[in-house]
Amino acid sequence: MNIEMIRAAAERLKGHARETPLLSSPFIDHLAGRRVLIKAECLQHTGSFKYRGGYSAVSALPDDVRARGVIAFSSGNHAQGVALAATQHGVPSVIIMPADAPRLKIENTRALGAEVVLYDRATEDRDAIGAAMAEARGLTLIKPFDEPEVIAGQGTTGLEIAVQARALGVEQADVVVCCGGGGLTSGIALALEAEAPGLRARPAEPEGFDDTARSLASGTIQRNAAMTGSICDAIVTPSPGHLTFPIMQRLCGPGLVVSDAEALRAMAQAFLRLKIVLEPGGAVALAAALNRRDQIGGDAVIVVASGGNVDIEMYGAALATLAQ
Amino acid sequence: MNIEMIRAAAERLKGHARETPLLSSPFIDHLAGRRVLIKAECLQHTGSFKYRGGYSAVSALPDDVRARGVIAFSSGNHAQGVALAATQHGVPSVIIMPADAPRLKIENTRALGAEVVLYDRATEDRDAIGAAMAEARGLTLIKPFDEPEVIAGQGTTGLEIAVQARALGVEQADVVVCCGGGGLTSGIALALEAEAPGLRARPAEPEGFDDTARSLASGTIQRNAAMTGSICDAIVTPSPGHLTFPIMQRLCGPGLVVSDAEALRAMAQAFLRLKIVLEPGGAVALAAALNRRDQIGGDAVIVVASGGNVDIEMYGAALATLAQ
Repeated sequence: MNIEMIRAAAERLKGHARETPLLSSPFIDHLAGRRVLIKAECLQHTGSFKYRGGYSAVSALPDDVRARGVIAFSSGNHAQGVALAATQHGVPSVIIMPADAPRLKIENTRALGAEVVLYDRATEDRDAIGAAMAEARGLTLIKPFDEPEVIAGQGTTGLEIAVQARALGVEQADVVVCCGGGGLTSGIALALEAEAPGLRARPAEPEGFDDTARSLASGTIQRNAAMTGSICDAIVTPSPGHLTFPIMQRLCGPGLVVSDAEALRAMAQAFLRLKIVLEPGGAVALAAALNRRDQIGGDAVIVVASGGNVDIEMYGAALATLAQ
Repeated sequence: MNIEMIRAAAERLKGHARETPLLSSPFIDHLAGRRVLIKAECLQHTGSFKYRGGYSAVSALPDDVRARGVIAFSSGNHAQGVALAATQHGVPSVIIMPADAPRLKIENTRALGAEVVLYDRATEDRDAIGAAMAEARGLTLIKPFDEPEVIAGQGTTGLEIAVQARALGVEQADVVVCCGGGGLTSGIALALEAEAPGLRARPAEPEGFDDTARSLASGTIQRNAAMTGSICDAIVTPSPGHLTFPIMQRLCGPGLVVSDAEALRAMAQAFLRLKIVLEPGGAVALAAALNRRDQIGGDAVIVVASGGNVDIEMYGAALATLAQ
């Protein structure tokens, strides 16, 4: 895993991934106590950065392998990213989802061209189902984060940040990244190391699911006690990956941890001041910039707003915080 | 009023106005029955395209004139655009607003550096108040649309559309623009005439406030019967301007008219599929693309999503359309 892979991914993504804008607002700056630049990855195709990794992985496959199709386990953003990338390459994709996943996510993934296979969480083994399908059809598994070409794709976000931040005169800053398994965080960290060494990646996580923060603090991979119980479902993973953790350990500053309520309030500020739609898991980095100012140094901070796939009930709860 | 003024405005706006992205979604394409490219001007500074015209006008003033300050009549997006532009130039701004304007808009305009002067709509004459202040302090009035340097600033949106659409392979299309007094529409029309002659501007308006559509149809400036009664308040004006109308008459295709309900549903689609926040008046162009497909020609349509300054109650009403 190295910067050349990220640069190669950027070449493959050219004309496909969107170069998302780096937004700002004087009102956000005021709340955060420093200049804040927000990388709006919610505006990426399929509504999250996951399209970058999905496209990178699918495009990196040898033609004959790719032609047989790809498979992914996901009920969320990774599913949509892989589905769209496969469709754009004209190859089949199979997405394994729990039968109780939100109907809209199932429909969206199908509409993007995937074959969605549902399984019963209580009685069926998704890995066995996936392995059998992959074997029978010769499908290639696209893992959500612990996969070099996925990390390379997510890292292209960091290449863009390096250029955009420099154009705005920001060369020394923390770059706060919403962190699940660490694919986005480690990819960005590698890109910044090469292209903007004054910028340092820092993972942001929800309370109770701060496996990466604890792993960085202890120096060994730590796991979360639970896999449910946060509204930030998009970034809840068991632990950082075996590929992503060593990169984060070498390059990232300490993890930042925010509450669900802080994530909701950050979503509301993004609505009010930036005019972008964020999901809870996509808002934790902004929440950290707004609420953990003592744990962040420097005159400016860069925030990756990583996704916007949120249902209207949750969004209503976020906007309701403005009326308080 | 000519393309050279727009190009000069673009030079002055460089490094200040944001180059907003041209977004898309396969789901929006499906609903519209053709490819749709959405120019997300809600992501502009102050949440609407009005910053472009405000900055253009303030920056075009001679130094000694600008130093005395500027004045504007507005309770909305124009106020915020002028206020921020003046503050960025280090000069004072006075914004005249009705005393019953939403508190948040008053606070925002003040926070952007303006002196807000409130008047009573029932008993006071805002023009007399403004004229007296302008006279006493030597302030320059920045009109909201019928002013060459304002039109030039709004026209920079069209320069960007020309480049961005070409990069996506779109050279023949209607460009649907949310239209109030016609500053944005006429500026874009002039820019497209010079830079992308296969793209044609078309104004979009709310039902009952379709003064521009009727003016274009009749060949003479028509007025609206009322000034209130649409949720699309940002684009309700008495009539197209004396500068803007002849430009629109020469260059624009027929006007498109949508209902308030269609504007709300377009806001909801922008939330769901594009992850941008639109206000009703900023969503009428998207609403026209989604609901007036028989009145639009070609394989692709470009939509200007002009603003996102909406309160949470109205936004809740828009999202509620998704649950129907």
